[in-house]
Amino acid sequence: MTATARTITLFRADVPESRHPMMGVVCDAAGTVVRAWGADPHAMVFPRSALKPLQALPLVESGAADAFAVSDAELALACASHNGLPMHVERVAAWLDRIGCTVDDLECGAHDPYDAGATRTIYEHHDKPSALHNNCSGKHTGMLTVCRHLGLPTKGYSDAHHPLQQRILTTYAETSGTPEAAMPVGIDGCSLPAAAMPLSGLATAMARFADPDGRFAPARAEAARRLCRAWAAHPELVAGPNTFNTDAMVLSGNRVLLKRGAQGVYGGCVPEKGLGFAIKAESGNSVAADAMTAVVMRELGLVDDEVWKKMVDLPYFRETSWRGLPAGTYRPEDGWPA
Amino acid sequence: MTATARTITLFRADVPESRHPMMGVVCDAAGTVVRAWGADPHAMVFPRSALKPLQALPLVESGAADAFAVSDAELALACASHNGLPMHVERVAAWLDRIGCTVDDLECGAHDPYDAGATRTIYEHHDKPSALHNNCSGKHTGMLTVCRHLGLPTKGYSDAHHPLQQRILTTYAETSGTPEAAMPVGIDGCSLPAAAMPLSGLATAMARFADPDGRFAPARAEAARRLCRAWAAHPELVAGPNTFNTDAMVLSGNRVLLKRGAQGVYGGCVPEKGLGFAIKAESGNSVAADAMTAVVMRELGLVDDEVWKKMVDLPYFRETSWRGLPAGTYRPEDGWPA
Repeated sequence: MTATARTITLFRADVPESRHPMMGVVCDAAGTVVRAWGADPHAMVFPRSALKPLQALPLVESGAADAFAVSDAELALACASHNGLPMHVERVAAWLDRIGCTVDDLECGAHDPYDAGATRTIYEHHDKPSALHNNCSGKHTGMLTVCRHLGLPTKGYSDAHHPLQQRILTTYAETSGTPEAAMPVGIDGCSLPAAAMPLSGLATAMARFADPDGRFAPARAEAARRLCRAWAAHPELVAGPNTFNTDAMVLSGNRVLLKRGAQGVYGGCVPEKGLGFAIKAESGNSVAADAMTAVVMRELGLVDDEVWKKMVDLPYFRETSWRGLPAGTYRPEDGWPA
Repeated sequence: MTATARTITLFRADVPESRHPMMGVVCDAAGTVVRAWGADPHAMVFPRSALKPLQALPLVESGAADAFAVSDAELALACASHNGLPMHVERVAAWLDRIGCTVDDLECGAHDPYDAGATRTIYEHHDKPSALHNNCSGKHTGMLTVCRHLGLPTKGYSDAHHPLQQRILTTYAETSGTPEAAMPVGIDGCSLPAAAMPLSGLATAMARFADPDGRFAPARAEAARRLCRAWAAHPELVAGPNTFNTDAMVLSGNRVLLKRGAQGVYGGCVPEKGLGFAIKAESGNSVAADAMTAVVMRELGLVDDEVWKKMVDLPYFRETSWRGLPAGTYRPEDGWPA
């Protein structure tokens, strides 16, 4: 294990303007830390939406996905923080309908689509966003699907005391190697329980998705493989166009599966190496987390020279003035890795 | 001078989720540091829009404000990062018209109003935001007013080589005590030059606004007093409803004049004490800067017990889920000061 400090910095006129100390850790499926950056690879973090692939395990393991003929696209949406485009919203609506639920059953609340154009369209129609536009609507529909299949109450499915949420907490413990009692639980933006765990625990869970045999019981191993296939097949559903999450997956040829979480988190799954990684910007800054994810992908040898040029040139790392002049850039304070 | 580390932290379930190391400094009009928090009171920072009151000095000093009968409300808008509400946009449009300019003369570019309702209204009308909605439109109109008065070209007024921008750079040097050559200059969001200076330089300039006699030549001292009167009289024009900037000024009885800047900056002017202060979140986080501003106001004895209760209860310091459940809180990691 090597530990290197790494700070992502916003430069203006090549002078540092704002700084984001980063934590990153790569683990194998045994939970061994194979590489680390920053203060503490075992720091307690809230992975937020980076936990969505773990939250989707019961959907497959319980048999609910098979019973309701859940497609790979729908499984990708169960793992998604989507942008609220028609391709996301319409699929979630059709899935809800198929399980005999409606938008009123979703307990995630409503917010404007992350995609600015989708928001504009809603306003132009003098309409309001619904819970379908919530970036978590696919995950919540997956949870309703499990409740339907297991005969659990759908009302209150988002409550920490609901049997499904208890099962998900146990899933976190089993996959990350963190005892349930050691995970503080708060409330997420979509009103679900938000658990904290060591950053290395998230990386370990991601590694076990990448290399499940022998680490997971056969049914869970098969569920992890199926979710990884769906995740890799639909990068545009897991986040959306004009996001680093989707663009970086596509640039990697979908060899790296990425899931962003609020407050500067990423979980990454690298099936070909049997590794997982986890990233947290101490400040919670999401662009800094994008940049650090690029660094980790490069330093793990997952991005060749040609793709690397495209990756560091992604627009997310540039600030332009409203008139279009170049104004600032995000990059590692000591430069992008070669 | 006392130096105390101070970190503003986002807590979830009372567990730290994201951390923002803060820098803050209080200076008197001599430029003496009287109080400091964090790493380095002399750290180079980009004050961004916290420089707007300084940028407005030539508008008054040059005689342009008198020549064009610029009102106190318009002077407040010259110092503003406004929310793009009709009260802001209509006043800027009328001012532009009075100096014989139009929206096409503004070089700030267009962006959606910071106020979500104002943005919604534009979209509902199938319209686009104009440069009038840009939070900097008042400042840019003030600059056009100076150009009109002095016979300078209006086209290109935002360029670093334009005589007005050169004059403004000299104004920064004179008011902050920072040599021009020691100020790196980049590009701001509104395409104007963005200068960097020591955090203590911004606090010193703010202190000289608060206590200008003997520090500024008589014309500049009178200009500073006039801008402070306008700033104090129109807190809702300097930022807008539903902003910490405006709410905190009003809660202080407008005894404290505040100007936020992008990337977690505040400049503060306290006329009754002849002091100025400056704040920078190392991460650039704006909510952390709001919270640190509250801390500094309290620790300077500018907020009584009753107002303090209201200030720490402002909604900007709370995260709620989209369904309305309490989810997170921003506060100093070691607690709000008593």
